[in-house]
Amino acid sequence: MSENLHIDLNSDLGESFGRYNLGMDSEIIPLVSSVNIACGSHAGDPVVMRDTVQLAAQAGVAIGAHPGYPDLQGFGRRDMHLSPDEAYCFVLFQLGALAGFCQAQGVRLVHVKPHGQLYNTAAKDAELARAIASAVYDFDPTLTLVGLAGSYLVQAGRDAGLPCVGEFFVDRNYTDEGALVPRNQPNALIEDADFAVKRLCTFVQTGTVESVSGNIISIDAQTACVHGDSPQALDFVRTCRHALAQAEISVCANR
Amino acid sequence: MSENLHIDLNSDLGESFGRYNLGMDSEIIPLVSSVNIACGSHAGDPVVMRDTVQLAAQAGVAIGAHPGYPDLQGFGRRDMHLSPDEAYCFVLFQLGALAGFCQAQGVRLVHVKPHGQLYNTAAKDAELARAIASAVYDFDPTLTLVGLAGSYLVQAGRDAGLPCVGEFFVDRNYTDEGALVPRNQPNALIEDADFAVKRLCTFVQTGTVESVSGNIISIDAQTACVHGDSPQALDFVRTCRHALAQAEISVCANR
Amino acid sequence: MSENLHIDLNSDLGESFGRYNLGMDSEIIPLVSSVNIACGSHAGDPVVMRDTVQLAAQAGVAIGAHPGYPDLQGFGRRDMHLSPDEAYCFVLFQLGALAGFCQAQGVRLVHVKPHGQLYNTAAKDAELARAIASAVYDFDPTLTLVGLAGSYLVQAGRDAGLPCVGEFFVDRNYTDEGALVPRNQPNALIEDADFAVKRLCTFVQTGTVESVSGNIISIDAQTACVHGDSPQALDFVRTCRHALAQAEISVCANR
Amino acid sequence: MSENLHIDLNSDLGESFGRYNLGMDSEIIPLVSSVNIACGSHAGDPVVMRDTVQLAAQAGVAIGAHPGYPDLQGFGRRDMHLSPDEAYCFVLFQLGALAGFCQAQGVRLVHVKPHGQLYNTAAKDAELARAIASAVYDFDPTLTLVGLAGSYLVQAGRDAGLPCVGEFFVDRNYTDEGALVPRNQPNALIEDADFAVKRLCTFVQTGTVESVSGNIISIDAQTACVHGDSPQALDFVRTCRHALAQAEISVCANR
Repeated sequence: MSENLHIDLNSDLGESFGRYNLGMDSEIIPLVSSVNIACGSHAGDPVVMRDTVQLAAQAGVAIGAHPGYPDLQGFGRRDMHLSPDEAYCFVLFQLGALAGFCQAQGVRLVHVKPHGQLYNTAAKDAELARAIASAVYDFDPTLTLVGLAGSYLVQAGRDAGLPCVGEFFVDRNYTDEGALVPRNQPNALIEDADFAVKRLCTFVQTGTVESVSGNIISIDAQTACVHGDSPQALDFVRTCRHALAQAEISVCANR
Repeated sequence: MSENLHIDLNSDLGESFGRYNLGMDSEIIPLVSSVNIACGSHAGDPVVMRDTVQLAAQAGVAIGAHPGYPDLQGFGRRDMHLSPDEAYCFVLFQLGALAGFCQAQGVRLVHVKPHGQLYNTAAKDAELARAIASAVYDFDPTLTLVGLAGSYLVQAGRDAGLPCVGEFFVDRNYTDEGALVPRNQPNALIEDADFAVKRLCTFVQTGTVESVSGNIISIDAQTACVHGDSPQALDFVRTCRHALAQAEISVCANR
Repeated sequence: MSENLHIDLNSDLGESFGRYNLGMDSEIIPLVSSVNIACGSHAGDPVVMRDTVQLAAQAGVAIGAHPGYPDLQGFGRRDMHLSPDEAYCFVLFQLGALAGFCQAQGVRLVHVKPHGQLYNTAAKDAELARAIASAVYDFDPTLTLVGLAGSYLVQAGRDAGLPCVGEFFVDRNYTDEGALVPRNQPNALIEDADFAVKRLCTFVQTGTVESVSGNIISIDAQTACVHGDSPQALDFVRTCRHALAQAEISVCANR
Repeated sequence: MSENLHIDLNSDLGESFGRYNLGMDSEIIPLVSSVNIACGSHAGDPVVMRDTVQLAAQAGVAIGAHPGYPDLQGFGRRDMHLSPDEAYCFVLFQLGALAGFCQAQGVRLVHVKPHGQLYNTAAKDAELARAIASAVYDFDPTLTLVGLAGSYLVQAGRDAGLPCVGEFFVDRNYTDEGALVPRNQPNALIEDADFAVKRLCTFVQTGTVESVSGNIISIDAQTACVHGDSPQALDFVRTCRHALAQAEISVCANR
């Protein structure tokens, strides 16, 4: 029945640092069902983490950790070649730090979604994926691990015994194999907002999207990432919410 | 009865960072009953934290967090003028991060002892002391807060409802008021190891020490800090253990 | 003669870091005669430094180093209690780093103005002031040192044999003694832009301002700091430029 | 004639950081002719840089910059995927910072040798090699660039118009093609000190070494790196010095 259709909308937040403000966190939070909060390594600092957990707790959205490479200057977007053991420790450190703020405010940490290049590398590097999954599992085996749909990271999470969720990219094209078209290729990004929104609704209704070559492919995803770092990004999320409501698709977290 | 006499010996560990090794952690752990583990701000990194928690867990000593100012180059020994709110967040961040490693290894975080200048400033700055006590309480009200005996930090911990422990300095002279003789004064340090060891035993037996001016003063302390960062420091701890055993004083954590 | 009246307008730039953008550098540069570029410690990174030196070189404004405390999270606004020797080394490090980018682009480093709390503390701490002056002198004795008008920093620079320039604050009230009214007092800031602009012109014409208690006091300053970190700040600078032009006061660097 | 035979011995120094001491810098300096000083990114801090430049200046050895990836926790040994433009800026930043300390002490910066993974990646990545060579050239075209003998880095330096020097590894085996046997293969390291020392002398006399498969190959190198981070390493350098002296090979910098 259509009233059962639903999707989780998630957004990456808490990316400010000291004097540096980034993102429109208080505007985006009411529009999403899950937030991924930076943990002080690629972005965020202890004050920002406390404030962001507070905002999210007040709004009642599902709180997740968004661990990244320890590279503030590169915003976690450069590969750092951590060994699996190093990655295990750096992820565990960040989970604990964010969970501490949740614990102090009496809210639950619900999920973990790696950030940036840690996310990208873990999608295709089985060893790194296993290290991340182990860190999450050892910290709390009830946490949900979020990764690129169909990636090694989701596979490693399932193998470790974690609840897992695949992520759908609203503004990226897919290959016939269900991989993202690399950013250095034409058609990597979907520029047409209306098309992207319709495609999101179709995905929720059917579990499929049209690939870049026109074939219908299945995507095993239960969450979709939206951005909130500019007024245009916010407008796009509002358009998504409107279209989802029209299609009688509810927005709610996976818990 | 003498068989009931006991003292907690604590030591600051986990202060290595990346390629930089500091401290003789595996040698000191068997000699103490409590360890204070650096949390990645003034010293320590995620790999070192994991390894040190593991060493401490294997030895069965009480594990504490040793949060400090976020200043690796200054080793947390310079005052940083964090606002109370900033101090609250930076301490909470560090508690969470260390507790994450404990949780992953199935051991309990028992106590918190601020490091270096955070410890010193919190001893005499009531506002900073309250901020630290709040962070500890909000994170976990069963944690024991360790501070300089008779300091504002211990007072703030008690006011917040935390179990508190005062710390005794084996190698420092005290004023008639029970404060430490400042390091820039002669007689600040006790150089004579035999005298220091005897004084430690007397302190455990009577709760008093002779002040720098020769008066007998009371110190409200239940733990004594020993260093393990050089072969001589280790030898001194061994001498302490021997003297304590001779005096039928047992070494055990406050739990 | 009025056509000889002139003032240097300086602004703090190059304060972005990695993904974090701060300041409207390309808009403010055409409006000022001197820029103070962050050196990668309290703000700025190597890419930002290169880009900012390039912008400033293209515009032909006088380039200065803006060294600060090594505290990115606190933006150099917290006191850090560096020893004078540490301050000497941290300042020298930052001067060299910025001068390297100037050298690579064939432009000259002209002046040095400490940032934030390093500036404030050096204004009233003679020992820190001497350490900074020594670092500047040892690096290049032809550099101009910029400090709060009437401060220990300017005095230390003169004692060291450096050309020195006092700084005037357009938007701050002064005490009868020529000190800034502390920020935690009412009347610290001048909120009325028209009044501030008129006061700037009067200062250039007479070397005096009206103190917060209504007395006329002399200020020994040859440069005035303006901000460019918001559209309103830019508007204010444009208003200043217009008023200065009306008063036939030219804007040019002190070289 | 044998009295003309000479070699430069270089060592990586200035790798301490804050409270963390690394290396036996004052012991190794009298035994070498060139030093490569860490520049505060992968190791070193402003105080250490000032002190190390001072030690080197007093000893009269040739001073070089040893720039590395901005990753203190990883000691610059992990690849960081800086873009060529980022690498250019990060290297230039480090050259300027170190040169500032040289300038303040009235000594000349003579050469530049990248550190760790920056060195290794630049040996085989032509684009990174060109970025580094450009940074060195733009900063000061009279600086000598030191890289792995036969590497892209040396080639890029020559193409840029810089004086270049190839580096010989005393304790590493070479393939028939003149590349280093990778560390993950058996025979990567030469464990036999006597053999290594004889091989060094032979190399200076003939410009050749025996490859790992027994062939005689030419190495285009004018400097040899020795370590000074342990008593055994120091002993090895002393053995080298003795053997070189016996063979009437002098040790002197390439200037």
